[in-house]
Amino acid sequence: TQPLTIPAKQRSASPSVPSRTDRYLARKLLELAGSPQVRIQLWDGSIVGEKIENPLATLRFKNRSAFREVLRNREVGFGDAYSDGNVEVEGSLVEFLCEIYRADEHAQNNPNWQSRIIRALTRQKARSNSLTGSKANIHHHYDLGNDFYSLWLDREAMQYTCAYYARPDFTIERAQREKMDHVCRKLKLKPGQTVVEAGCGWGGFARHMAKHYGVKVTSFNISHEQIVYAQQQAIVEGVNDQVEFVEDDYRNITGDFDVFVSIGMLEHVGSQNYSVLGSVVDKCLKENGLALVHSIGRNVPALMNPWIEKRIFPGAYPPTLREMMDIVEPFNFSVLDVENLRLHYAQTLYHWLERFEDHESTIQEMFDDTFVRAWRLYLCGSIASFLVGSLQLFQVVFARGEDNSVAMTREHLYQPENRS
Amino acid sequence: TQPLTIPAKQRSASPSVPSRTDRYLARKLLELAGSPQVRIQLWDGSIVGEKIENPLATLRFKNRSAFREVLRNREVGFGDAYSDGNVEVEGSLVEFLCEIYRADEHAQNNPNWQSRIIRALTRQKARSNSLTGSKANIHHHYDLGNDFYSLWLDREAMQYTCAYYARPDFTIERAQREKMDHVCRKLKLKPGQTVVEAGCGWGGFARHMAKHYGVKVTSFNISHEQIVYAQQQAIVEGVNDQVEFVEDDYRNITGDFDVFVSIGMLEHVGSQNYSVLGSVVDKCLKENGLALVHSIGRNVPALMNPWIEKRIFPGAYPPTLREMMDIVEPFNFSVLDVENLRLHYAQTLYHWLERFEDHESTIQEMFDDTFVRAWRLYLCGSIASFLVGSLQLFQVVFARGEDNSVAMTREHLYQPENRS
Repeated sequence: TQPLTIPAKQRSASPSVPSRTDRYLARKLLELAGSPQVRIQLWDGSIVGEKIENPLATLRFKNRSAFREVLRNREVGFGDAYSDGNVEVEGSLVEFLCEIYRADEHAQNNPNWQSRIIRALTRQKARSNSLTGSKANIHHHYDLGNDFYSLWLDREAMQYTCAYYARPDFTIERAQREKMDHVCRKLKLKPGQTVVEAGCGWGGFARHMAKHYGVKVTSFNISHEQIVYAQQQAIVEGVNDQVEFVEDDYRNITGDFDVFVSIGMLEHVGSQNYSVLGSVVDKCLKENGLALVHSIGRNVPALMNPWIEKRIFPGAYPPTLREMMDIVEPFNFSVLDVENLRLHYAQTLYHWLERFEDHESTIQEMFDDTFVRAWRLYLCGSIASFLVGSLQLFQVVFARGEDNSVAMTREHLYQPENRS
Repeated sequence: TQPLTIPAKQRSASPSVPSRTDRYLARKLLELAGSPQVRIQLWDGSIVGEKIENPLATLRFKNRSAFREVLRNREVGFGDAYSDGNVEVEGSLVEFLCEIYRADEHAQNNPNWQSRIIRALTRQKARSNSLTGSKANIHHHYDLGNDFYSLWLDREAMQYTCAYYARPDFTIERAQREKMDHVCRKLKLKPGQTVVEAGCGWGGFARHMAKHYGVKVTSFNISHEQIVYAQQQAIVEGVNDQVEFVEDDYRNITGDFDVFVSIGMLEHVGSQNYSVLGSVVDKCLKENGLALVHSIGRNVPALMNPWIEKRIFPGAYPPTLREMMDIVEPFNFSVLDVENLRLHYAQTLYHWLERFEDHESTIQEMFDDTFVRAWRLYLCGSIASFLVGSLQLFQVVFARGEDNSVAMTREHLYQPENRS
């Protein structure tokens, strides 16, 4: 049996009437997906998976071509068909995706011969991040327009990275402030110190450090739009004498700094470049300096979801903690602290999604329907990935191996006076 | 030039008079050791390295055979000659060893052709830890007699692992109690829970958990003397209905537990067995269970100091954090928290050394002079290794990848009410 090959004679059948083969393939699709608690509705309204009790969601195909797109390439096909509006999900999109990811994880751990072959045939390859390639990849995502991101990110610092919910009822503004302070406490910032930041987004964290910790910050970013915004905002906030924004790649960092920090850049670095990143830290960190890398990660090595990698984040790769060791081990850095904030990212994304939906019509006007649906899928898919544990968020603090000035305990991170 | 080959004609010279070759070789020894701030005194009282200003210590060779032993095999030779009393160190032994380790690190990072060859020729191989091999290796060290260890370990719980100095003035008793509580807080122990412990030493931590956290503990250890002591002490302390001590290997753990904990056993597991350890945790940990592994480690992969491995801890190996990932990654465990307590181990060892020296004459009577010197060197060498950063102490907390019941923050580890 070749479940995913559509017999020629079916191709001429009326597009409005699903054939027996279509129904067979839909059942097969559910089976290959690890039998999630999900029903399929075909384009004539008929249901596949009627026997599934209390389905979490129904996946509705509006036409045969969308169905075939998903059969051909489950992840990219589904993402594109969903974005085009030819596939809909009845029920909570987050719950549907959680169920799909959990079932898929299960199917991956218990593969049958069919899914083994399909997986082997559709294996992804990570894109490389050369100096020019990085610039193109970053432009694709981060130069969508500051106006777009400012609609749904926190209004104070435009942090497009995981926030820190020290209390579950924090707003996104408060949680992003807490994230920045949590990182600053980990880095033990002291007035007058120098900080170099690799990948600064719209510069919110750089300005926060300058304003609240009295440090001098040099921030690198290859997104032109972000750098322009960051510089303007530094003038508005009166910290432009303390913060320098450099439109350049992290590989070109030079100088001597008390602190190295990188929040949410490693995902775009590519695992083949981690030791290059480590050598940059090694070159620019003072003797008793502290470094922190904050990145989306994995428990088990795997490429980014291929649809997200293709349509949303070209070149992105979330490393395992083991892979992240390529940054520290070759340079005798000492890992002092690792914290996993996975569930904080799910909460951050929920807050982003809420604002995104509040501005749906504005975003539709800025772009189009397809863009809105694609980004909805991306945000919901990311929530689901963090909730089912297929994505992690690691904060790794490290220092030079011979540095005995490091903190004895982490109590200073949890001083009650720092939180109301 | 072959600096470490002693010409035949020199062999017949008077043993009391160092030859020109001896002096040449002594200079060469310092050079190969990375030119530490250390002088050598030969057996006639003459000094090599007079030009070294403010030497941190003087290494005194009492005879040519000790000198040749060290030339032949720097680490094992020095350890044995020091133990025999044929080599002495004038000055602080810890400071001397720190200087030697730092200089050696430097020499390793900048090897010349001679040291490259010498290193290649003297490369160690780690011993394997099969089920029977482990038993022999563990017996060698831990069955030296409970009376011996009780002379210098903390008096309450006989913890032969790194303590936790939340305050620098803690006694060893207090710091060991704090270590146990720190681990218990990381594991979020709740009354009625079941805990399995791999490698329990004299059972102090198992009894502490039972007494103060109301949990049921099953503890595994292959040291017969330790298990006998642990069981007796559980009766004395009235917790024998809550704690079961099993004289068996961690690989034979079965059952379902809320918590898996292992403090100071991984050093004896051998890196080739880490995934076996992971599979044991995977098999015995409940769905929302928490696990903690506490181990001496490295920043950069390296075998244990060969003299310590040979004379003190056969089969011991301190892993890097990357190597420790073999425990978690194959089983989709999620690393939640890593803490590095390196400097706490230096302080712990200082406290042990102090008591060890207080009981020098008793220990001499129990064993002999060589034993006392060997253990002094082992304790001082360990202090030095932690101080120069060649050894680390990692506590790694992990849970199942899909467990969303994990703590959002680590604030609960630092509640002021838990500490006076």
